[in-house]
Amino acid sequence: MRVLVLGADGYLGWPTAMRFARLGHEVGVLDNMAKRAWELEVGARPLWPVEPLQSRVNAFAALGHGTMDVFVGDLTDYAFVSQVVREFRPDTIIHYAEQPSAPFSMMGREQCVRTQVNNVTGTLNLIWAMREHAPDAHLVKLGSMGEYGTPNIDIEEGPLPIEVKGRRDEIPFPKQPGSFYHLSKVHDSHNLTFAARTFGLRVTDLNQGIVYGTQTEETLLDRRLRTSVHYDQVFGTVLNRFCAESVSGRPLTVYGTGQQMRGFLNIRDTMQCVVLVSLNPARPGEFRVMNQFTEAFTILELAQLVQHTARQQLGLEVEIAHLENPRNELQQHYYNAKHEKLLELGLVPHHLTAETVGAMLRDFHEHRQHIDTSVLVPTVRWVRADPAPIAQG
Amino acid sequence: MRVLVLGADGYLGWPTAMRFARLGHEVGVLDNMAKRAWELEVGARPLWPVEPLQSRVNAFAALGHGTMDVFVGDLTDYAFVSQVVREFRPDTIIHYAEQPSAPFSMMGREQCVRTQVNNVTGTLNLIWAMREHAPDAHLVKLGSMGEYGTPNIDIEEGPLPIEVKGRRDEIPFPKQPGSFYHLSKVHDSHNLTFAARTFGLRVTDLNQGIVYGTQTEETLLDRRLRTSVHYDQVFGTVLNRFCAESVSGRPLTVYGTGQQMRGFLNIRDTMQCVVLVSLNPARPGEFRVMNQFTEAFTILELAQLVQHTARQQLGLEVEIAHLENPRNELQQHYYNAKHEKLLELGLVPHHLTAETVGAMLRDFHEHRQHIDTSVLVPTVRWVRADPAPIAQG
Repeated sequence: MRVLVLGADGYLGWPTAMRFARLGHEVGVLDNMAKRAWELEVGARPLWPVEPLQSRVNAFAALGHGTMDVFVGDLTDYAFVSQVVREFRPDTIIHYAEQPSAPFSMMGREQCVRTQVNNVTGTLNLIWAMREHAPDAHLVKLGSMGEYGTPNIDIEEGPLPIEVKGRRDEIPFPKQPGSFYHLSKVHDSHNLTFAARTFGLRVTDLNQGIVYGTQTEETLLDRRLRTSVHYDQVFGTVLNRFCAESVSGRPLTVYGTGQQMRGFLNIRDTMQCVVLVSLNPARPGEFRVMNQFTEAFTILELAQLVQHTARQQLGLEVEIAHLENPRNELQQHYYNAKHEKLLELGLVPHHLTAETVGAMLRDFHEHRQHIDTSVLVPTVRWVRADPAPIAQG
Repeated sequence: MRVLVLGADGYLGWPTAMRFARLGHEVGVLDNMAKRAWELEVGARPLWPVEPLQSRVNAFAALGHGTMDVFVGDLTDYAFVSQVVREFRPDTIIHYAEQPSAPFSMMGREQCVRTQVNNVTGTLNLIWAMREHAPDAHLVKLGSMGEYGTPNIDIEEGPLPIEVKGRRDEIPFPKQPGSFYHLSKVHDSHNLTFAARTFGLRVTDLNQGIVYGTQTEETLLDRRLRTSVHYDQVFGTVLNRFCAESVSGRPLTVYGTGQQMRGFLNIRDTMQCVVLVSLNPARPGEFRVMNQFTEAFTILELAQLVQHTARQQLGLEVEIAHLENPRNELQQHYYNAKHEKLLELGLVPHHLTAETVGAMLRDFHEHRQHIDTSVLVPTVRWVRADPAPIAQG
């Protein structure tokens, strides 16, 4: 199988590329390196230095794990997208190449518009390039569980069968996202639903939960193959941030009561999921939705697990702080999201055990000198605290 | 009331600006004139020559009907949007300033991306400018009934109350639009729902049916005040196109069987609706949806009405042609869309009578020498007819 990984310089993209290559597939990696600039914009840096993509590709090949084709360019540039799809002839496209942070999209007008234009245009260009040059390829698009919000009904995987006033229909599951970033993914999903129906494309939309973890099977092969792990308030996911806080002697930054319940998965399971989905593609014209997470916890449960593990395994005393919630979200809500389709394809979850958290904490502890504690506390607020006009780009 | 009309050079924008001015409101008109360029791109021209916006504003003032502030610029330019909102200080913003054609958005990648980036960015910039400079203003955003598609349940005005597995919720009405243009409006609606909830903005989303008509009370005041009426396959709405075909000796171009049912309204009722909504604004933080049409017909019923009226009133024999449907849409479907909220506000509909169609036909007949019959037949196809690659911009 020829697999093109978009956003291959990132946290999930790079380990995904390595996984497919080690499984014997022909891999192309594509990135515009924009995320590294966005990190610098907000003053964030990964847990450890991350080699340039080309260096990692070279190291991976030198270690005997196989070669990858490298494409450097921007998905918003159609001439580039079109050429890559035409020349690489992918069977599968794994699409991580979007601005991935909700707080980034809420910083102000400039970041909001940049996020939506970047994400929506990139995916539209991909749709048209596939229609033109790879109409039978399978697009595996990473979405987010955050697109759904917290409805008072079960969150389905795919359409919602309903009966209203005696009439039946299956409707696209209604989404009530909580940031301009999550909205960009909702827009993508609508565009892709239409593209599958109209152009006959094969599409799988993976609504992913919150990913945690520092290592995959492949990143552990060599230090030069590590992936970009973030712990800051803008690009860091919550469990990674809690680990950084634990080893830095900072309290765990729980937003509000912490009763918010979310779906989570280990980065190793992201690898499993995208491989399983690629080996079992959507049919031509099918827009298929899967919810990609393995367990649901409240943020407070997560904080308590980290607190407990830090004490037991590293002898660290960690406090839990309840900050005023910078987001506009329900703190107590119903939450029952289906996540069966990936299990049916063969996913064997890595559950979030004390052992897993312990391994993460030890990774963070080893690199604790690199951690910038000034970027842990949230400064991006959904609702303006003061009535004064704020600076806009 | 201070009313800012966005897209004021267009078919609906210009008569709207005149209506508010004649009612004694202070009116600002804004346009970037882009639509005139888009018309030239596809080789279309309005039924009659349309004076530049500034000339029409001057003529309107010279006739003693009041002055308007003119702002020429692009909603995708935030410095411009921000300055206009800050300086004009609108109480109400009527937002027509989007690329309005489904076929245009389906011509190819370039037009698709241009449509979505233009429409989504313009509305996002407006959200942020209102948050910064006019947080209490009321945004009246024109959407489309086409956003809903043709679900097998009643189309509501606002959220859909549902009961699933014994649990109740109100969900945003699920939308299944049929073009990249309609998708851009769906994206807008999602962004605006979030903006109302998060920033406390007042928003009314008017999902408008297919507008027909050549004149309003104000355009009839003077020939220099006429609005831009289109009849071509890209920018012309269906009834206007049928009138152009009737007076040109061409068959009426019905797409497929013509059993597709749609909501329609007279341009005079668009005027009524936006005034009624502006006088009865949404509450702070409210995202309010209204379905702005007065009657539902099948396309074939419409063709037969035009055919009959042309024979009766103008002595014209008109054929009805069933073309292969260039769109990807259901031809037979359930259709029951609510449209009560505007009636409750006081809308008195102009129904589609033979008298109305006759007046339109006479307007088209008077200007039949200007009609370009080469732009009546659809050339933009949703699904590619041949398997060969097509040229993409």
